[in-house]
Amino acid sequence: MNLPEEINIIEVGPRDGFQNIKEFIATDVKIDIIKRLIDANIKKIEVTSFVNPKLIPQMSDAREVFQSVCDKVKCLVLVPNLKGAEMAVEAGAKIITMVISSTESHNMANTNHTISASLKEMSEISKICQSNGVRLRLDLATAFGCPFEGKVSIRSLKNIVYAAGQSGIRELVLCDTTGMANPLMVEKTVKELGTESGNIVFGVHFHNTRGTGIANILTAVTLGINNIETSVGGLGGCPFAPGASGNVATEDIVNMFHDMGIKTGINLNKLLNCSRYLYGLFDNKLSSHTLIAGTTYSGQKCLEGVKSERNQIG
Amino acid sequence: MNLPEEINIIEVGPRDGFQNIKEFIATDVKIDIIKRLIDANIKKIEVTSFVNPKLIPQMSDAREVFQSVCDKVKCLVLVPNLKGAEMAVEAGAKIITMVISSTESHNMANTNHTISASLKEMSEISKICQSNGVRLRLDLATAFGCPFEGKVSIRSLKNIVYAAGQSGIRELVLCDTTGMANPLMVEKTVKELGTESGNIVFGVHFHNTRGTGIANILTAVTLGINNIETSVGGLGGCPFAPGASGNVATEDIVNMFHDMGIKTGINLNKLLNCSRYLYGLFDNKLSSHTLIAGTTYSGQKCLEGVKSERNQIG
Repeated sequence: MNLPEEINIIEVGPRDGFQNIKEFIATDVKIDIIKRLIDANIKKIEVTSFVNPKLIPQMSDAREVFQSVCDKVKCLVLVPNLKGAEMAVEAGAKIITMVISSTESHNMANTNHTISASLKEMSEISKICQSNGVRLRLDLATAFGCPFEGKVSIRSLKNIVYAAGQSGIRELVLCDTTGMANPLMVEKTVKELGTESGNIVFGVHFHNTRGTGIANILTAVTLGINNIETSVGGLGGCPFAPGASGNVATEDIVNMFHDMGIKTGINLNKLLNCSRYLYGLFDNKLSSHTLIAGTTYSGQKCLEGVKSERNQIG
Repeated sequence: MNLPEEINIIEVGPRDGFQNIKEFIATDVKIDIIKRLIDANIKKIEVTSFVNPKLIPQMSDAREVFQSVCDKVKCLVLVPNLKGAEMAVEAGAKIITMVISSTESHNMANTNHTISASLKEMSEISKICQSNGVRLRLDLATAFGCPFEGKVSIRSLKNIVYAAGQSGIRELVLCDTTGMANPLMVEKTVKELGTESGNIVFGVHFHNTRGTGIANILTAVTLGINNIETSVGGLGGCPFAPGASGNVATEDIVNMFHDMGIKTGINLNKLLNCSRYLYGLFDNKLSSHTLIAGTTYSGQKCLEGVKSERNQIG
């Protein structure tokens, strides 16, 4: 198994997670959660998205959230279009992630743009970013399958990757938006794109909708992908499958990689404390395994149940 | 990725799952569920365990359950000791699985035997099986970690594997009883044991306690292990972590492997119907992803939500 010594975790819960919770989370609660994540030594956090507050009221405090934490951690912010990018730059964002889907129907549902229109905006956003010293990343949504169109062709991914490269983008995240990827597909996709990526560094973002998220991350990591997006508590859900799991939980990935001797730089106990705090706030919207079971070698806790569970099998 | 054309799924829900549900499930309900699994074309099912009914009342109807379905499918039954094996043989079982843990404290908690005493019984059970034309398998519990003792040495696994081989056992299942395995550990363990297994064919049984179950199965499969134990609906739980996930859900594994072009012979829709039926019975004791999200390409269902989910991001 080809493994790195260290992987980079990008925490997306405050964006992907909070956006999928219908209720508005008070701004100070959002900021408090982000500070707990920073305290757990997470180095990159997608803290909010600059979107139309009428459409996504959950993110209407994007500017305030961003500005309250931007001096404490590397903050990523998501934007769907030119308007969002302008708002983000104006607020002082230094790393902006634009999102474009690999399929027309999903891009239209998600951003109300054709792919071609989004690519044109990407080019304009890139110019604005360059002249403001802002780094632009791209989230390539539905990269492993589309809930409307099913399988996605490598060709359509390559077209967007090529356009991103032409716009000067150097970091692109392959997003399994509705959890349709499997490890073999990840291997094929990464191998195919790897050869045409030029200067682009790939990351991955897997939803655990059908349980394959961790196997997909592992596959990507063994192929040399080192930027992994996950969400504390597994927040995130899937808008097309009510009740389904969200992003892979950050603590599950950190627990597994630490057990495998791979560094993340994250303080797992502090991260679990943050997840526990979220559990109190959101309860069943979480889909974290390690939060419930404890870390692999938490030992003593497990011993408490011995007597009552004795003679479990016979 | 080194993948087989086909994998063998061994369904353990009616044993590992039902045993972890505190309430007694009526015998006719158990039989009904097993018949649904047979109808989904599952070829091997661990249907019950022959244990002390005072200690495990959930399995007190082992004989009746077994005899109601044994002419319809390859039935496996679990036994913890000589007494259980005698009951199983007397009931007509043709495939018996004995269980021994790799660690003294877990073997004692689970079977009230030292490992040495269990190995001695294994030898006796093997003789009884041979003279009755019964195939004996071994479940090697806590093979990837013990909730009491932590890490498990390869040496202790090898000792039991060796003893199993000496007793004429030809099928041995490496069980991650409380979900402590990670893919690197699976690789190391399988590679180490593989070289000393003689005629023994290995299977694996991973609990998804910390979310790594599917990644672990994938790793084992790429190393050539072809017998995979899973549980419909992800039934099973972890006795040492209340509320934690159980076995990897059979439907999640079948959905993933089918997506990867690997055959299982199982009718996934019928399997999901069975899981749906279990959901009605046991609700939150299930931990299946595919049951909630639908199969990867179930397409039309996903389209229903389009309007309300439109402009999800911006």
